[in-house]
Amino acid sequence: MTVQFTKTSEFTSQDFDMMSRALKLAQRGIYTTAPNPNVGCVIVRNGEIVGEGYHYRAGEPHAEVFALRMAGEKAEGATAYVTLEPCSHYGRTPPCAEGLIKAKVARVVCAMKDPNPKVAGRGFQMLRDAGVEVQVGLLESEAKALNRAFIKFMQTGMPFVQLKMAASLDGQTALNNGQSQWITSPKARQDVQRYRAISGGVLSTSKTVMDDNASLNVRWDDLPLSVQAQYPQQHVRQPSRVILDRQSQLSDDLKLFNTDGERIIVSPKGDIAPKLDQTGQINLAATLKTIAAEHHINHLWVEAGATLASSLIKANLVDELIVYLAPKLMGSDGRGLIGALGLSNMADVIDLNITDVRMVGVDIRITATVTTNPN
Amino acid sequence: MTVQFTKTSEFTSQDFDMMSRALKLAQRGIYTTAPNPNVGCVIVRNGEIVGEGYHYRAGEPHAEVFALRMAGEKAEGATAYVTLEPCSHYGRTPPCAEGLIKAKVARVVCAMKDPNPKVAGRGFQMLRDAGVEVQVGLLESEAKALNRAFIKFMQTGMPFVQLKMAASLDGQTALNNGQSQWITSPKARQDVQRYRAISGGVLSTSKTVMDDNASLNVRWDDLPLSVQAQYPQQHVRQPSRVILDRQSQLSDDLKLFNTDGERIIVSPKGDIAPKLDQTGQINLAATLKTIAAEHHINHLWVEAGATLASSLIKANLVDELIVYLAPKLMGSDGRGLIGALGLSNMADVIDLNITDVRMVGVDIRITATVTTNPN
Repeated sequence: MTVQFTKTSEFTSQDFDMMSRALKLAQRGIYTTAPNPNVGCVIVRNGEIVGEGYHYRAGEPHAEVFALRMAGEKAEGATAYVTLEPCSHYGRTPPCAEGLIKAKVARVVCAMKDPNPKVAGRGFQMLRDAGVEVQVGLLESEAKALNRAFIKFMQTGMPFVQLKMAASLDGQTALNNGQSQWITSPKARQDVQRYRAISGGVLSTSKTVMDDNASLNVRWDDLPLSVQAQYPQQHVRQPSRVILDRQSQLSDDLKLFNTDGERIIVSPKGDIAPKLDQTGQINLAATLKTIAAEHHINHLWVEAGATLASSLIKANLVDELIVYLAPKLMGSDGRGLIGALGLSNMADVIDLNITDVRMVGVDIRITATVTTNPN
Repeated sequence: MTVQFTKTSEFTSQDFDMMSRALKLAQRGIYTTAPNPNVGCVIVRNGEIVGEGYHYRAGEPHAEVFALRMAGEKAEGATAYVTLEPCSHYGRTPPCAEGLIKAKVARVVCAMKDPNPKVAGRGFQMLRDAGVEVQVGLLESEAKALNRAFIKFMQTGMPFVQLKMAASLDGQTALNNGQSQWITSPKARQDVQRYRAISGGVLSTSKTVMDDNASLNVRWDDLPLSVQAQYPQQHVRQPSRVILDRQSQLSDDLKLFNTDGERIIVSPKGDIAPKLDQTGQINLAATLKTIAAEHHINHLWVEAGATLASSLIKANLVDELIVYLAPKLMGSDGRGLIGALGLSNMADVIDLNITDVRMVGVDIRITATVTTNPN
């Protein structure tokens, strides 16, 4: 269904203000809504905010429901600002488009259409058919950034993949003998907890789990205070831990099996049978697709060694790199961030696009996307 | 001579404003004054700026002279803000303390005393003996930061050493076969030109000069426009190029010998005879001291390979690291930023303190100091 977008120049400054507020509300759900999208809603009548809300957790009401509840009779004739097209289908809750119509909202402004091309536009159509004025496209790129994992999965069936790496300033992840604890500082490790908590799943390998006896779960005490303040401890959503274990090496006594949170083991006898490629290696693209489809994980946070990191990059499966560089020099005889690439021509190096750089405690955190890869 | 410092609380907001202005004026000389310090002066009477100036080049008048010239008779009864203790000795120019006294300035506020412990306080004493009120210590740390090379040399006889490094995000300076051009972007290379232009000397090795046929001079066209706008092309001060050439390998046909600027060759038949240590290597500490003392270079900018870089760091001779990281991954089979360190214990890694991180074009520039080294 084709959706007509409204020109930016047709929106008023109040429209921008209110949609910004709706986006901020939506943002509050980033630790709790997965695999659902983050959505915020603000209802305004005569310049006054009469209702607002956001989606907090899967299974709980959508943003529009909270906002309409708060607005009550004041929703009549009001404008509703919603960061995502209101749903039009009967699921665990009645469609939000219907709720807005019943409340006699006069106008609905949306940031973006439903990312699922099969349903996009149906919510708008339902509203228009009921005589509600509909405008679409206000702060669309901001709204898309907020739900990039949800959108990617809806459009491609693949999860959004963030690859975490940590090294010294000279790119070493460990000394030659394997010693590596702790390269980065406690603040950087707290930051990692935050990323884990946002993601739907943490992807790692049996080697990393066994080497570090890693639990890979979210530890409440290690979350930043700002996050702890935001929602109660019992609402911490543990990401699923997805472990590639092609040779079934994991044993029950590991911390992984004795900590909260779902485990998805990719092994011959595990939860997902490894799909192998012609060389006998796990076919990562097919495996990620299965993880997303069968386990409702649209956002994977990867913590593993150089081998998986470089395999994911080479297979063009990484959406974002998060690289922590510690203020240390370890010497080039240590272990490298990405492993050997066997390149003999500078034109073949992996090109990145750096989108953010900042200090996290004493460490540097670099966010980047991959723009080329040496295939 | 002991110098009494004035408490910060005794200064007025006008004092802070005027010293800040004097520091900004001093800053304008950073490309031209070496090996002299950067000094600014503002003369204020009844809240009005009646004169100001800064030191522009060695051999030209000091900041106070310009400011007094501009103030003329209005200097009488005024306050002079100077970023460095006025000189008290007869050199190429009469002492500035005398100039201030003759102009009947009533009060002199200085950011810092002369860094040479043998003369510190004499300028203040000369002023006080003539009945001028003197206050010292306003924005002292800012003033010291501006002249850190001049201060270090005055206090230790050693030059201030900045070590430049450039690598991919995974710490590689070249592929395994040596290919490396260009890892960093044109903006980063422009930034390097700026650092060269600020320094008194560029230190490198015969290997780097021969491998790249490097001229290591300052190219006007490559300086940022902001610098080009600041002073005329003919005022570009070429840093001396100091090349370690223990085995006398350099030949006359290299660009190094066919470009503007002094060359100081550290070789058996060169300008400085290499002082060797017990292992037959150049004694870097002794060599740097000689370069500073004999060639009036208090600020060295080092561009060389991993070997000299790690030797300088291990010998604790580096004051500041400037590391450019390009948005690339080259693989751990390339050439490392710092060379092998042979470490077997994480407690022995070289610890840095990051003082600045920013984007320079598409690259990241990290500024750091060395806080420990593995000796």
